[in-house]
Amino acid sequence: MAVHAASTTVVPAAELRSFAAKVARTVGVPEEDATAIADGMVWTELRGVDIGIKRLTTLVSRIRAGGTRADPRPAVIRESASFAVLEGHEAWGQVTSVRAMRLAIAKAKSTGVGACVVRDTGNSLAMGYYPWLATQEGLIGLAITNAIPLQGPWGSTRKLLGNNAYALGCPAGRHAPIIFDAATTTLSWVGIHEYEARHEPLPPGAALAADGRPTTDPAEALAGILLPAGGHRGFGIALMWEILSGVLSGGEHFAPLPDDNGAAAVANQSTFVLALDPSKSMPHATFLERVDTLIDRIHACPPVPGNERVLFPGERGAEVAAVREREGIPLAPVRVDELRALSHDLGVELPRSLA
Amino acid sequence: MAVHAASTTVVPAAELRSFAAKVARTVGVPEEDATAIADGMVWTELRGVDIGIKRLTTLVSRIRAGGTRADPRPAVIRESASFAVLEGHEAWGQVTSVRAMRLAIAKAKSTGVGACVVRDTGNSLAMGYYPWLATQEGLIGLAITNAIPLQGPWGSTRKLLGNNAYALGCPAGRHAPIIFDAATTTLSWVGIHEYEARHEPLPPGAALAADGRPTTDPAEALAGILLPAGGHRGFGIALMWEILSGVLSGGEHFAPLPDDNGAAAVANQSTFVLALDPSKSMPHATFLERVDTLIDRIHACPPVPGNERVLFPGERGAEVAAVREREGIPLAPVRVDELRALSHDLGVELPRSLA
Repeated sequence: MAVHAASTTVVPAAELRSFAAKVARTVGVPEEDATAIADGMVWTELRGVDIGIKRLTTLVSRIRAGGTRADPRPAVIRESASFAVLEGHEAWGQVTSVRAMRLAIAKAKSTGVGACVVRDTGNSLAMGYYPWLATQEGLIGLAITNAIPLQGPWGSTRKLLGNNAYALGCPAGRHAPIIFDAATTTLSWVGIHEYEARHEPLPPGAALAADGRPTTDPAEALAGILLPAGGHRGFGIALMWEILSGVLSGGEHFAPLPDDNGAAAVANQSTFVLALDPSKSMPHATFLERVDTLIDRIHACPPVPGNERVLFPGERGAEVAAVREREGIPLAPVRVDELRALSHDLGVELPRSLA
Repeated sequence: MAVHAASTTVVPAAELRSFAAKVARTVGVPEEDATAIADGMVWTELRGVDIGIKRLTTLVSRIRAGGTRADPRPAVIRESASFAVLEGHEAWGQVTSVRAMRLAIAKAKSTGVGACVVRDTGNSLAMGYYPWLATQEGLIGLAITNAIPLQGPWGSTRKLLGNNAYALGCPAGRHAPIIFDAATTTLSWVGIHEYEARHEPLPPGAALAADGRPTTDPAEALAGILLPAGGHRGFGIALMWEILSGVLSGGEHFAPLPDDNGAAAVANQSTFVLALDPSKSMPHATFLERVDTLIDRIHACPPVPGNERVLFPGERGAEVAAVREREGIPLAPVRVDELRALSHDLGVELPRSLA
């Protein structure tokens, strides 16, 4: 698989991670949080999803404008043996989601299941990162976020619910962890913008225009409404995710603002994470063997014509990550320009490969 | 809304419940389990879903043939503060799912979250009933089951995964609880059989024939493969549900048999239930108010042309149930014949309205 085009610049993951952490520290983010932010961003880049390092510029502009606090000290305001509520204090979303998942993991190791809900926080970037953290501790993980309204209840064209992205992860033995990362709409917010940027029409069935007409025009879709994946089921899932995030957290529901809604706008998203310890059911090695067997049976399925292999969710991402860990991360010219601007602006030394 | 056709016979819910419980007791089911079976079946009938009382005949034939144990004494074989594993001992699925949810509810009230996984059990009928039980205790609930393979991994035509039905529920204050009940395929196993019985074609995009061609013929679909709802997302959800049920339970995965696969065949399905106590996050009345506000905002959305009202998941079922509680449950002639046969066969007195 080709992992980069000729016009890209290849940066080693470690250099990119170190640069991102330094940038975050330079605008006042404490070391531990800066490391978490950089890790999550580079995890995303390694898997070929361009919603990682591009957000570094957003982080800096939001902290400067006051929309995001550099050192928010998110606090556990309610806690029981398996559940906690985290007041995000306008933190950057990655910071609270990592803390929430670490807390859920600790609780799951103790009681079997741990959950944590966060309010007053920002965008957490790729949701798959948080269940992946759980899989690194041998646990099954779930992460859910609410988001700016983009879809309606089933049978209406009023924007009421976000695409409410979510991800589930499960550790394996011989194989990479299963990471299933999805939005509840056919296309994500980011996805629609990507179609717009590429001047490509949307696939049919993804959106309605403001007047209720089906549309394949990205601009019309952004002015209109996204359709849920799987019809009424996508709405049902999005609604339940809204309840588990915005309603259960005590934060905003049906009205969260994205981080990029003006750098000074205080983010009011909510997230929910859950971890479950399979070693409370059977010896851990047995569980991993069972997951490996499951994956082997998926791989043994004959592909439909035109499909080379049958993959499990997260498999391609793990393969791309292995190549990029070894060969470096290809960055598009626009990303390189952003990193140069941050370096110049903050006096943080550029990665050697970009200097 | 018309709740019954002229050819149906109307039976009061209490009479049907009492008859079903007596039938179960007559074939050796202990009183508590018989009551749970009858409650769940009538709950389903009240909501207008025909997968309730029709299963009474299956229960009797399975117990007689030895595929289901009348008095299985399902045992908790592993337990931690928030998690338990239940060995189903070839119980009827409703019996284990109710026990599992009661256990999860008790754990959630104590620790915030409770989960329970069951193996070696049968079909649990409508999954919505179990989160509904959680809502009756003020909790958020989730129930998942694996099932006989009907769909493939994304990009293959080999049957590997069930439609793996699931349901989520949330209590409300002024409104009925939200109950979102779905399969991971576009159509359920039961749904395909209903199309077949009505001699109607399937909607496009629901199934592939055995050779991989898209088909709208129910018989071809049953010989072929069902397609997941929402494309690869439906596969991702079904796979994670298989992990949380069949893999985590230590039971069969990718190979469970349905209850109706011959009455002597031992059922080997797995189920997973989870309950979460929102009063661990905020005062319970506050949570219910927040859910009511959410529902009010859904109701305030303008419907698309041709849609009279915008509903939340479970709303129509609750409305039908209110009418049927008052006016009785309309039973189709085939159901009445089944009940008459059971009455005659077991010497259990028919409900007065059917005598």
